[in-house]
Amino acid sequence: MAAAREIRLKSRPNGRPVADNFELASVELGAPGAGEAQVKNLWMTVDPYMRGRMNDVKSYVPPFQLGKAMEGGAVGEVVASNDPALKPGDLVQSNFGWREAFNAPASAVQKLDPQGLPAQAFLGAAGMPGLTAYVGLLRVAGLKDGDVVFVSGAAGAVGSMVCQIAKAKGHTVIGSAGGAQKVAFLRSIGVDHAIDYKAERDLNAALAAAAPDGIDVYFDNVGGEHLEAALNAARPFGRFALCGAISMYNATELPPGPPNLVQMVGKQLRMEGFIVSSHWNMMGDFHRDLAAWVKAGKVTWKETVFEGIERAPDAFMGLFTGENLGKMLVKLA
Amino acid sequence: MAAAREIRLKSRPNGRPVADNFELASVELGAPGAGEAQVKNLWMTVDPYMRGRMNDVKSYVPPFQLGKAMEGGAVGEVVASNDPALKPGDLVQSNFGWREAFNAPASAVQKLDPQGLPAQAFLGAAGMPGLTAYVGLLRVAGLKDGDVVFVSGAAGAVGSMVCQIAKAKGHTVIGSAGGAQKVAFLRSIGVDHAIDYKAERDLNAALAAAAPDGIDVYFDNVGGEHLEAALNAARPFGRFALCGAISMYNATELPPGPPNLVQMVGKQLRMEGFIVSSHWNMMGDFHRDLAAWVKAGKVTWKETVFEGIERAPDAFMGLFTGENLGKMLVKLA
Repeated sequence: MAAAREIRLKSRPNGRPVADNFELASVELGAPGAGEAQVKNLWMTVDPYMRGRMNDVKSYVPPFQLGKAMEGGAVGEVVASNDPALKPGDLVQSNFGWREAFNAPASAVQKLDPQGLPAQAFLGAAGMPGLTAYVGLLRVAGLKDGDVVFVSGAAGAVGSMVCQIAKAKGHTVIGSAGGAQKVAFLRSIGVDHAIDYKAERDLNAALAAAAPDGIDVYFDNVGGEHLEAALNAARPFGRFALCGAISMYNATELPPGPPNLVQMVGKQLRMEGFIVSSHWNMMGDFHRDLAAWVKAGKVTWKETVFEGIERAPDAFMGLFTGENLGKMLVKLA
Repeated sequence: MAAAREIRLKSRPNGRPVADNFELASVELGAPGAGEAQVKNLWMTVDPYMRGRMNDVKSYVPPFQLGKAMEGGAVGEVVASNDPALKPGDLVQSNFGWREAFNAPASAVQKLDPQGLPAQAFLGAAGMPGLTAYVGLLRVAGLKDGDVVFVSGAAGAVGSMVCQIAKAKGHTVIGSAGGAQKVAFLRSIGVDHAIDYKAERDLNAALAAAAPDGIDVYFDNVGGEHLEAALNAARPFGRFALCGAISMYNATELPPGPPNLVQMVGKQLRMEGFIVSSHWNMMGDFHRDLAAWVKAGKVTWKETVFEGIERAPDAFMGLFTGENLGKMLVKLA
């Protein structure tokens, strides 16, 4: 019988999202029905992929609906349960973010074993961004001994995990991010060569200086000029994992692709796009490896936290203006 | 003690090659030295990749040298031998094309077992273009049951083999080529949907009409707009084998890449460039399969033949003006 606030999609953005695309509303939650639980969200995540769901176009996930609460990852606590699988106090993960609380079938949430990790870690390092890094490096790019690894968007939630996993496995890592603060962060997590792409006049030259013998693996979070530079720097049989292309989410007109794509032939490069949800079956291996790396001090993470459901749009819009350092989160309780 | 004519690189082309880039010269061949054989070439091939070797830039094969005979695939007959491994009358394959005859160490030529195939087949269907098709489809693109296959440059030496191998294995095949004659040829070899890209105003629409449910495999011989259309038409988990990009060999300034490359992420596409010489170890499997397909009437080929070493530059330049139907060859004897 709680009043729960939520963020709804008010209008679809044209290009970069603005405050007026969102509205704050309040709903009254009844008691959970048969087979349902009531969950109070503790944390929610905002992620670049959500921008795609704000468009009314066919994609690998359906678009958000106007006038309805948006969706996304959240971690919460069960406060009431009408299903034997859950009991009050249980920590659960769900896709019912962008709201303070909700009723849902027990089968629609996933019970978590925190294993000593803080709850919000399951939205970041131990959750989708971390698994994205793990899948992209190990399965998609097929990381192997001796590979030199280049990561764009390296200070982000995914990128910083890519850097640390590659370092934990003994690789030379070159990370690119925008601004002195992010570069300092990259150095703090052990990146061998940190490139401040906003300060560099020539990204190709900066990458060539950082990797004079070239790169073997490129983990792409941004597309555009970084992809072009990675093609130039790639050694024969290089493998590129394409994860994000954040620079294109807001593009109303698509920018041209890299003019040097033809290098894929002569260098025999492989490029593969992936979506983490096709690789949930690696979660067990990932949590096992992550627990060991965290224990050994090899993996840490930063968070940027906005407090309160009313700040969720600000947190989301901040993704596209480079305001976040590490995982962007909204603390809801 | 034969006079043998050869084609030398006179100057490096800027863009499309012209007649003045070549010169015809004659050399006197002495008797073969110890361990050498003298070979009279019967056939030589001209291939788009040779354009790259005319530039003085680092690539996966070294550039041709000014004032020296060009190089490329040839099939010839041993006329004298100073090595026990070869005897007069043996059919051999070598990289000593662009010349009528040559002396070379026996180890620098490969003795052929014709298996009932005509000699020039080893420069085409049974040689590098055929193996390129086989490797690209089966290993690089990982062709699997039910895949819908799209091929650009489909009437070319490689493309027509891609079409026929895919048909022999039971796939739906869409082939694109330029002009009514090539399209008629595609139909004659069993291609399900032949697109005349020169006659189409909208390649995307033409491909969508040919493959209303999308494509799974794209064998790229041309790059550019075809690659863009293939990205648009690709189904999730599509695989692209990048072989040629012939449209770019003459580009002095690189054209922009496909603006829709970002679709690789959402559709989880894989794109891989390859060079056939990294896959010689598939030659045995290929010849075994090809022999069976030829016997069953499932694989045939067309040749465009220029006669005489002096026509070799014309044959080569014709590759870039679309004059060839099937394998472009020069008959030398």
